[in-house]
Amino acid sequence: MPQRPTIALLTDFGTREGYVAAIKGVILRRLPDATLIDISHEVTAHDVTTGALLLLDVAPYLPPGAVCVGVIDPGVGTARLPLAIECVGRALHLVGPDNGLLFPLASAGEFRAHAITSAAAVAPAISATFHGRDLFAPAAALLAAGATVDQLGPAVPRLVELQLPRPVFEDRRRCGQILRIDRFGNLISNILRSDLPLGVAAEALRFDVGGVIVNGLSLSYGLAAPAALLATVGGFDRIEIAVNGGSAAERLGLVSEMSIPLIVSWD
Amino acid sequence: MPQRPTIALLTDFGTREGYVAAIKGVILRRLPDATLIDISHEVTAHDVTTGALLLLDVAPYLPPGAVCVGVIDPGVGTARLPLAIECVGRALHLVGPDNGLLFPLASAGEFRAHAITSAAAVAPAISATFHGRDLFAPAAALLAAGATVDQLGPAVPRLVELQLPRPVFEDRRRCGQILRIDRFGNLISNILRSDLPLGVAAEALRFDVGGVIVNGLSLSYGLAAPAALLATVGGFDRIEIAVNGGSAAERLGLVSEMSIPLIVSWD
Amino acid sequence: MPQRPTIALLTDFGTREGYVAAIKGVILRRLPDATLIDISHEVTAHDVTTGALLLLDVAPYLPPGAVCVGVIDPGVGTARLPLAIECVGRALHLVGPDNGLLFPLASAGEFRAHAITSAAAVAPAISATFHGRDLFAPAAALLAAGATVDQLGPAVPRLVELQLPRPVFEDRRRCGQILRIDRFGNLISNILRSDLPLGVAAEALRFDVGGVIVNGLSLSYGLAAPAALLATVGGFDRIEIAVNGGSAAERLGLVSEMSIPLIVSWD
Repeated sequence: MPQRPTIALLTDFGTREGYVAAIKGVILRRLPDATLIDISHEVTAHDVTTGALLLLDVAPYLPPGAVCVGVIDPGVGTARLPLAIECVGRALHLVGPDNGLLFPLASAGEFRAHAITSAAAVAPAISATFHGRDLFAPAAALLAAGATVDQLGPAVPRLVELQLPRPVFEDRRRCGQILRIDRFGNLISNILRSDLPLGVAAEALRFDVGGVIVNGLSLSYGLAAPAALLATVGGFDRIEIAVNGGSAAERLGLVSEMSIPLIVSWD
Repeated sequence: MPQRPTIALLTDFGTREGYVAAIKGVILRRLPDATLIDISHEVTAHDVTTGALLLLDVAPYLPPGAVCVGVIDPGVGTARLPLAIECVGRALHLVGPDNGLLFPLASAGEFRAHAITSAAAVAPAISATFHGRDLFAPAAALLAAGATVDQLGPAVPRLVELQLPRPVFEDRRRCGQILRIDRFGNLISNILRSDLPLGVAAEALRFDVGGVIVNGLSLSYGLAAPAALLATVGGFDRIEIAVNGGSAAERLGLVSEMSIPLIVSWD
Repeated sequence: MPQRPTIALLTDFGTREGYVAAIKGVILRRLPDATLIDISHEVTAHDVTTGALLLLDVAPYLPPGAVCVGVIDPGVGTARLPLAIECVGRALHLVGPDNGLLFPLASAGEFRAHAITSAAAVAPAISATFHGRDLFAPAAALLAAGATVDQLGPAVPRLVELQLPRPVFEDRRRCGQILRIDRFGNLISNILRSDLPLGVAAEALRFDVGGVIVNGLSLSYGLAAPAALLATVGGFDRIEIAVNGGSAAERLGLVSEMSIPLIVSWD
C-alpha cells in the first residue's frame, strides 16, 4: 500500500454545485493525508451503466490500496443497501449503492460485499438525499485508513446485478454496439481487443457501424489516411470508430450514442 | 489543525483557461504540502450571490483549519478591499474581495476581517486584473501555514454586506424562491428544513412552485411514485422540487432559475 | 525542489471519459507523493497551438521542480517522437509529443530534449492510442522523482517547431489578433504588455478590434465606465478587450475567436 491512500470518485453530480467538494471535505476531515482522484463527475444523471463501464475501465490504473467511491444513486434514501466491497487479491475497495454500479468491477474477480451500517462509518446526522457525503465518504475514508469491510457492517450475500452489454459472438462475426461518443467524436464500442480473433490480419477485419463500412483495423488514428474514417483499439482496449484528425460522430451525423450497432466480421 | 492544510477554491473562472491552475501553482509554491479542493469554478460570471450561497453550503464540510478562497470579483483592481477573514471559533479562514461574496458565511458567526496589505502576502508584481493569483492565493497560503489575519493588514471595521434572499414567514406559509437548477434538473430553493414548522406532518405540507402544486414532503427522491414531481430536503438542507428518476426543470419547462417562487403552506 | 513534487497536466481529453483519471492513477502508482495540477483538459480537440499558449502562460506560476505533461497528440502511435525536455535553469521539465506543443515553452530559454525510450519510463504494454497514460505519465513520474532527461533516452537534436502568432510591429502600430474568448467573454490577444511602447500614456493608446474602436488602456475592468467596452492587460500579460460587468464577445456578436484582428496604435 502506498503511504498516501488514494480515493477515486465517480459521480453524476457535475462540478458546479459543490456536491463533490462536500464529499472531498468529509474525506479529508477523516483522512487528511488522502489523495483524491476524480474519475468523472459528468456521467449523465442516473446513468448507472455508463458509470459501471468507467469504473471497470479506469480501476486497473489506480494505485494499489485505492478505494473507488461510485455515487450514481437515483435510489438514495430508499431501501437499497449502501455497500463496501473488498475486491479480493486486487488491492482495491469499492463503496457505493447496491444498484449495479459496482457489480461489473466487483464481479470481475473474487469479492466480499458488506452493508455499511457501523456508526463509525456514517455521519452523525445522515441526509436521506446525500449519502455520497454522509455515508459513502466516511466509509471510504475508513477503508482507505485500513478498516476491513466486515468492520463496516454485515455481509451482503447477493448484490443487485448489472450485466453490461457484451457483443454477440457469431461465426466470423462479433455483433456489438457503440457505448459512448467521446470528446473527439470517437465512437467507443463494447467490443474489446480480446474479442477479436487471433490469427486474422488487421487488414482482413471489416467494421460495419450502422451501415457504414470501414475496412481494416488501424494501429492508431494517425496511421490511417488523412481525414479517413477508421477503426482502432482505444486506450481502454475497446474498438473505436474514429476519423484521423477529425470527428467520427460528425462524419456520420451522430448526436447520440443510442442504438448504433457495430459489427466486426472477417472471411 | 490537520497536518496537511486544506485550501478550498471558489471562482467564476471556469477550468478551460488556466486561471485556476495559476492560482494553484502559486499556493503550492508557497505551501507545497497544501491539499486543494475545488468548490466550484463554474459559477455564472460575476454572480456573487450564487458564489456566497455555495460557500455557505459547502464550508461546514471542510476540514478544520481550512482556508476558503472566493474569487468572483468583477471589481478586481478597483478600490474594493482584498479581505482576509478569521471565522472565530470555527477553525475557518476566508480570503477574497470585499464585495459581499464572503459576507454571508463570515457573518454566520463571529468574525474578524482584515485588509490584505502586507508585502509578505502579495506577489512581487501584482496584476490589476488577476488578484486571485497575485494576492488572494499568497494570502491563503500564509493563513493555511498559520499566519493570523492581523499579520496580513489592518482591521476592516465594516464589510460590504450581501443579504441572501430569505423566505418571507407568514402564518402557515413560507414564501421563498428557487435559487438554482442543478444538473439533475432539481429546483433548489432558499427555504431550509429549519424554516418548516415543527409538529406538522410531512404529508400535510403543500408546495406551490410557480403555480404547480406538490402535496407532501418526501424523505427522498426514490420514495415518491415513479416519475412523480416531488418535494424533498436536499443535501444542503434546502427544500428542492424534483422528479423521481427525472428532471423537474424539464417537467416544468424551465430553462432558467430566475424568478420562480416557491411557497410552502399547511393548514 | 519542494518536498512533494508537482506534476501539471494539459490535455484535450475532457474530464468526462476517465482518460485523465487513468493518467493520474499511473502517476500516483509510481509516485504516491505527487501533487497534481490540472492546467486544462478542455482545449479544443487537436488544437496544439492553444495548448502551447496555455503552457506558456501557466508554467511561470508552477512550483520549482514541476513537470508539465502536455498531451494534445493527434499523431499518437505514429512516428512522432515522445519527448522529455529539461528547461535548463528554470527548474521545469516538460513531457509530451514532438508536434510543437512543448516547443514555445521549451524554446523560451535553453533546453535539452530527449526521446523517451527507456524501458523504465514506459508501461509494460503500451497502447498505440494512449501514450498519455502508458508513456508520458510514467516518464513524468520518473522526472518528478529526480531522473534526468538523458536517463530516459537519446538526445533529440531538432524538435518540430511551432511558431505562435506574434503581432506585427509597425511604426506606431502593433497588428495582432484575438487568440481566445474566455468564460467572461473577454477577448484575449497575442499582444503582450511588453509589446506596447514605453512612454506613451495609457489614454493615448487606441485599439481597433475588428473595426470597433476602444480608446485608452484601462488599468482594470471595473475602472472603465459601467458596461463600457474597454481594453486592459489580463492576468497573463495579454491585451484583452472586455466589457465592464459584461461580455465583450456578446457585445461584438462574436461566437468564435477565429480571425479577429486587434490593432493597437498611437500618435
